[in-house]
Amino acid sequence: MKKGLLIVLSGPSGVGKGTVCASLRRRMPELVYSVSATTRPPREGEKDGVNYFFKTREQFLDMLASDALLESAEYVGNFYGTPREFVERTIAEGKDIILEIEVQGALKVKEKFPEGVFVFLLPPSLGELKQRIVGRGTESQDKIDHRLSVAVEEMNLLNKYDYAVVNDEIDRACERIQAIITAEHCKRERFQHELIAELQDLTTAKNGSER
Amino acid sequence: MKKGLLIVLSGPSGVGKGTVCASLRRRMPELVYSVSATTRPPREGEKDGVNYFFKTREQFLDMLASDALLESAEYVGNFYGTPREFVERTIAEGKDIILEIEVQGALKVKEKFPEGVFVFLLPPSLGELKQRIVGRGTESQDKIDHRLSVAVEEMNLLNKYDYAVVNDEIDRACERIQAIITAEHCKRERFQHELIAELQDLTTAKNGSER
Repeated sequence: MKKGLLIVLSGPSGVGKGTVCASLRRRMPELVYSVSATTRPPREGEKDGVNYFFKTREQFLDMLASDALLESAEYVGNFYGTPREFVERTIAEGKDIILEIEVQGALKVKEKFPEGVFVFLLPPSLGELKQRIVGRGTESQDKIDHRLSVAVEEMNLLNKYDYAVVNDEIDRACERIQAIITAEHCKRERFQHELIAELQDLTTAKNGSER
Repeated sequence: MKKGLLIVLSGPSGVGKGTVCASLRRRMPELVYSVSATTRPPREGEKDGVNYFFKTREQFLDMLASDALLESAEYVGNFYGTPREFVERTIAEGKDIILEIEVQGALKVKEKFPEGVFVFLLPPSLGELKQRIVGRGTESQDKIDHRLSVAVEEMNLLNKYDYAVVNDEIDRACERIQAIITAEHCKRERFQHELIAELQDLTTAKNGSER
């Protein structure tokens, strides 16, 4: 069976990763969503394995130590991470899985999972991004400078990605990501293995016909 | 301006390249079709530059000598070839161009134009291809063996291509090729150049704000 794809959707903060990812999942119900592990306690209605894999701090540190996480980060005192096993099991079943994550985390995933499809979501224009950061006029110069530096750093990481998708309209961005997924399924490497076997059958048939 | 793409659609004889290409052009009227040069005289209603670029034998040989053809072949006493200039002008104008061609010609194009997008059209199954070749029962064993050899050789060239598209249904094959074209337009390399310039602007704005 052909393996599924790991699609990693990332991009600078505020570009709309979450909105695009949610819309894409509605369009593609067959696309599996990578569930994060966290040490944060479950909130009302959250289910283990659906919203998060809920872990104790000890369990999480064990996962870290045994390389069971593709990436991890600490946020407001809690750990969050991407369990490798869930991703690997899903693609082994031939299903595609999407991971929505910030740019630094995505690059950690790439180190451990270079065969992933890395998609960078771009703002409609950098001018617009700059406008948003500089143009408010309510923040201190220091803060503005810091946010500009972060934006420039994040945008500079584009060169580690396979694809860039402009988020001019959610629907158009989703269509482009869907096209990328379809195209990746058509990559020649995905056909070669089984074709070699089939071609041997053809050759056998040919030899057979020479009897 | 971003350059267009050269899409090369190829595959073994009888796989349905012509039908798929015609259907794709109806779906994508903006897609330019690579017009061949030929020494064959124009037939009733054929227009120079639309159906073919009609050339004298001398003109054609001059084009060959000056490397003005991406590939060429002789067929029933006439020369046929793919003019490089038409392809290069079209993509320089930012338009995508498609070239439908048999597998050997496609590989000659790849030597001179490695940045093309090479799509290999596959039969729904090799079993079916084999059936067609062996199963007729009307041809001599020699002919069957020869056709099987050619089929195996042509299929083996798949490993030189970027994508493989199964021609199970014309519409589905066209959708896959359209997805490949969209995805190729999203390749990160196509964005990097202009983004670097824009990022410099961002940094300038930042420095400006420090005044």
